[in-house]
Amino acid sequence: MTFLLVTGGAGFIGSNLTASLLAMGYHVRVIDNFSTGRRRFIEPVLQHPDFQLLESDLLDRTAVARAMDGVDAVIHLAANADVRFGWEKPGRDLEQNVTATHNVLEAMRHHHVERLIFSSTGSVYGESPLVPTPEDAPFPIQTSLYGASKVAAEGLVSAYAEAGHVRASVFRFVSILGPHYTHGHVIDFVAQLKRHPSRLKVLGDGHQRKSYLHVNDCISAIVKRLHADVDFEILNLGTENYCEVNDSVRWICERMNLNPAIVYSGGQRGWVGDSPFIFLDISRMKKLGWTPTFDIKSAIEDTVDWLLSNSWALKSAMLE
Amino acid sequence: MTFLLVTGGAGFIGSNLTASLLAMGYHVRVIDNFSTGRRRFIEPVLQHPDFQLLESDLLDRTAVARAMDGVDAVIHLAANADVRFGWEKPGRDLEQNVTATHNVLEAMRHHHVERLIFSSTGSVYGESPLVPTPEDAPFPIQTSLYGASKVAAEGLVSAYAEAGHVRASVFRFVSILGPHYTHGHVIDFVAQLKRHPSRLKVLGDGHQRKSYLHVNDCISAIVKRLHADVDFEILNLGTENYCEVNDSVRWICERMNLNPAIVYSGGQRGWVGDSPFIFLDISRMKKLGWTPTFDIKSAIEDTVDWLLSNSWALKSAMLE
Repeated sequence: MTFLLVTGGAGFIGSNLTASLLAMGYHVRVIDNFSTGRRRFIEPVLQHPDFQLLESDLLDRTAVARAMDGVDAVIHLAANADVRFGWEKPGRDLEQNVTATHNVLEAMRHHHVERLIFSSTGSVYGESPLVPTPEDAPFPIQTSLYGASKVAAEGLVSAYAEAGHVRASVFRFVSILGPHYTHGHVIDFVAQLKRHPSRLKVLGDGHQRKSYLHVNDCISAIVKRLHADVDFEILNLGTENYCEVNDSVRWICERMNLNPAIVYSGGQRGWVGDSPFIFLDISRMKKLGWTPTFDIKSAIEDTVDWLLSNSWALKSAMLE
Repeated sequence: MTFLLVTGGAGFIGSNLTASLLAMGYHVRVIDNFSTGRRRFIEPVLQHPDFQLLESDLLDRTAVARAMDGVDAVIHLAANADVRFGWEKPGRDLEQNVTATHNVLEAMRHHHVERLIFSSTGSVYGESPLVPTPEDAPFPIQTSLYGASKVAAEGLVSAYAEAGHVRASVFRFVSILGPHYTHGHVIDFVAQLKRHPSRLKVLGDGHQRKSYLHVNDCISAIVKRLHADVDFEILNLGTENYCEVNDSVRWICERMNLNPAIVYSGGQRGWVGDSPFIFLDISRMKKLGWTPTFDIKSAIEDTVDWLLSNSWALKSAMLE
């Protein structure tokens, strides 16, 4: 198994993964519509002899079919990954996360591409009564369109796996940090502090508890399961601890040598559908021999460093 | 709250519900595309002064918007409800169960229609390790496209409820039986026996354990929660026992006075994605004052009687 298709391969996780896979000797085809992916992220590999780029949308079924040609496995990362803005365009999560995943599954079925890695999210647990949350937590109630769309896509993947059309590993991530990070609270905070070093607005009360994983650890987990002999599995990915938004604020300010006034918007949740406590039980993945190498603090610091030395990446966040 | 929109109101459950609601004094608008709904089912109410029929598809957003006009609550029953044939047309569950539900939710949001009753299914539990299965059973793995599409639709409903756009009661049904029954094992068996009274082909090994509910009991549960003051709730509906497919075979044969040879296709599952044991914990709904009045045997007998005295309803099953 040497020829891999990475959907969303120009995105945050995808571009890091693509570079790693090429370095390991895999052939990689990326399909990306550059809606959130960035050409700059894959520029270093564009001339690599084992790299192919297909600039297409997963809603274009002909393109998806073309993307399967000769492929041994699919790593499906493409998604609308911003949980906050679901209500401005409620059809987007459905199209980009559900319909797109269905198109990938149908193309795999028709082209007899069996192996699938799918990126889901800890958001599927909604506000779980069980924390740290294991993969078989109580049947969750969805609190965001993003979570609902991912649980929908997971359901499709498992139905295809059950029927023998694919063999799938589904990863439920906490939020990922690191180089090529493009959205989320760290970029918001760094962008705010670049504009106004003396004041930082924080959504919610700062006590929301979150877990973060460095993209390198996310990639090592994917690579570890790439050749796994499984029909279907679900694996949480995260770190073994969590932090408060306030911890994150402190680490970011320290890293930037700033001491701003903090202004809280108030409330337990940063936005409608924000979960006040995300912390996943990762023992299943640890038993498979994986362990995260970055703790949350160092993952945040690495992200801040990358943002500060790549100020172009901050620009879109600063326009908001 | 007197003006109700029933989607799929010409279908099996919908047509029974519509007749009951009209009898109780509600105004009812039905939207149905007659893909599985039948004009014959609603003929008795077509001239009722409080009845309106909109022959439209829920994928037509303009029609869905029109359907909301003046409505106080929506009972969303329209769906592709046949779990067996998902793999012949894998996009159908997604369109008719997910996209259609999303269109209903968006139309409700835009027209400020708050109250929603949504018909989901026990199939969302896949093959649950917990039987009888409660609403908060372990996070299930989907074993059919039908189940996957319903868990997707449920997720959308709960995300809309969480964001305050709707107040929803989600019912997870076992298979429903009774007058206007149009698909499932009872019609298959009765149709087979009408053609070949001496031989009956049964999918699987006959030991699949299933639970069935009479449509009248299903309707009484919906009516009971119609005015409930809830933001979001999930309620299992079923009977307090289950039967084997073999029990059902015996009851049907006895009711038809036949003694055919039984030919099993073999295997634990009747088809890919068939769950060998469906039995729901209904204590949550019982605590709300509802209890089923038909046991499985009498529900099956009532269905056989209706099919035998409405042989036109058997025709499509006999052509298969």
